[in-house]
Amino acid sequence: MIPTITAFQNSPDKGRGMARDMPVRWALEEVGQAYDVRLLSFAAMKEPAHLALHPFGQIPTYEEDGLVLFESGAIILHIAERHAGLLPADPDARARAIAWMFAAKSTLEPTIVERETANREEGEKPWHAERRPILDRRVHTRLGELSRRLGEEDWLDGAFSAGDLLTVNVLRRLLSSGLLADYPNLAAYEARGEGRPAFQRAFAAQRQVFDAAQSSGA
Amino acid sequence: MIPTITAFQNSPDKGRGMARDMPVRWALEEVGQAYDVRLLSFAAMKEPAHLALHPFGQIPTYEEDGLVLFESGAIILHIAERHAGLLPADPDARARAIAWMFAAKSTLEPTIVERETANREEGEKPWHAERRPILDRRVHTRLGELSRRLGEEDWLDGAFSAGDLLTVNVLRRLLSSGLLADYPNLAAYEARGEGRPAFQRAFAAQRQVFDAAQSSGA
Repeated sequence: MIPTITAFQNSPDKGRGMARDMPVRWALEEVGQAYDVRLLSFAAMKEPAHLALHPFGQIPTYEEDGLVLFESGAIILHIAERHAGLLPADPDARARAIAWMFAAKSTLEPTIVERETANREEGEKPWHAERRPILDRRVHTRLGELSRRLGEEDWLDGAFSAGDLLTVNVLRRLLSSGLLADYPNLAAYEARGEGRPAFQRAFAAQRQVFDAAQSSGA
Repeated sequence: MIPTITAFQNSPDKGRGMARDMPVRWALEEVGQAYDVRLLSFAAMKEPAHLALHPFGQIPTYEEDGLVLFESGAIILHIAERHAGLLPADPDARARAIAWMFAAKSTLEPTIVERETANREEGEKPWHAERRPILDRRVHTRLGELSRRLGEEDWLDGAFSAGDLLTVNVLRRLLSSGLLADYPNLAAYEARGEGRPAFQRAFAAQRQVFDAAQSSGA
């Protein structure tokens, strides 16, 4: 049975692949699993039918043979456990790849999203000029640590894994910020992730949804 | 071989069990796995020896037979996969429990930590009075959603799981805030978690470390 994911009908990211269906699409493309997409309006995300699938009223969800999942990290781990290609076979290497999945979602992403949210929602506030460098500095701390750990390697721990997929996905949120420029190895790492054919297919698929919404005036 | 975790020599939480070794200790107690603890000063956490184990220079780490892990969520998942008691045997229920693990660490915790960090670091700033209700409101949004999903159940999805362990652990950060008072079912859920004998043993163990540091003047 082909799984069904949910995604924004009209993504606030304007088709830049920043919504959280993107890494799930990417993971499905990496393992060669076809999938269906059900698009949701912002209003529909907060309605009981969707809240029954996703307690926080967000996208993506993942439905397959009666299983309903939420949280992109958990969905990708589920996909990675059922198909080859996203987690190493060696148990220790597998556990370390999962550590990078959690690191991407709970150590890197929150700092990056906090900065993003402040820029978007508090950009006009009188305090933003003073807070902005504080938020940038927190992101730089994490990027410096990640850069030092990556070093000259292609991926974080051996072969490409779901840990890299989520880390690259999180770093993409900084593309328009200029902050990655201080870390050439991270910029190259992010570009390496984007260069994967599976990424390209996933990106095109989400972009096509956004373009269709625009042309229909949705 | 007994695993070794790292923890603060002198926890900034003053022994209240808010540091991230607490959920790892709790998980180890739930499954009955003995463990050793290596205590670290703040300075030692940023030294090369520790950064080789933890790229972000934090606690906890987990070492066992040559495996080195970081990220409390990943460590707990590793423990849960190797012992009974923290994840259901049914594959779908197991995947849903893991979704709650990611939800605790990447949907609930960031909002709560952002509020906490602002109260701690920006409490004296002129803008804090205006930002504080915004941060509280974001936490309330998540708590409302979590409360609605939990309903009258004891745990989030069937039997107690690693998803509940991490969710209770995150909710504990709000104990001194008063915010849980609006959600009697969440307050009862948090208390139910704390009432587990394994929680009590883990709490006493981390508390003993803090008390020892105090009496030695460390």
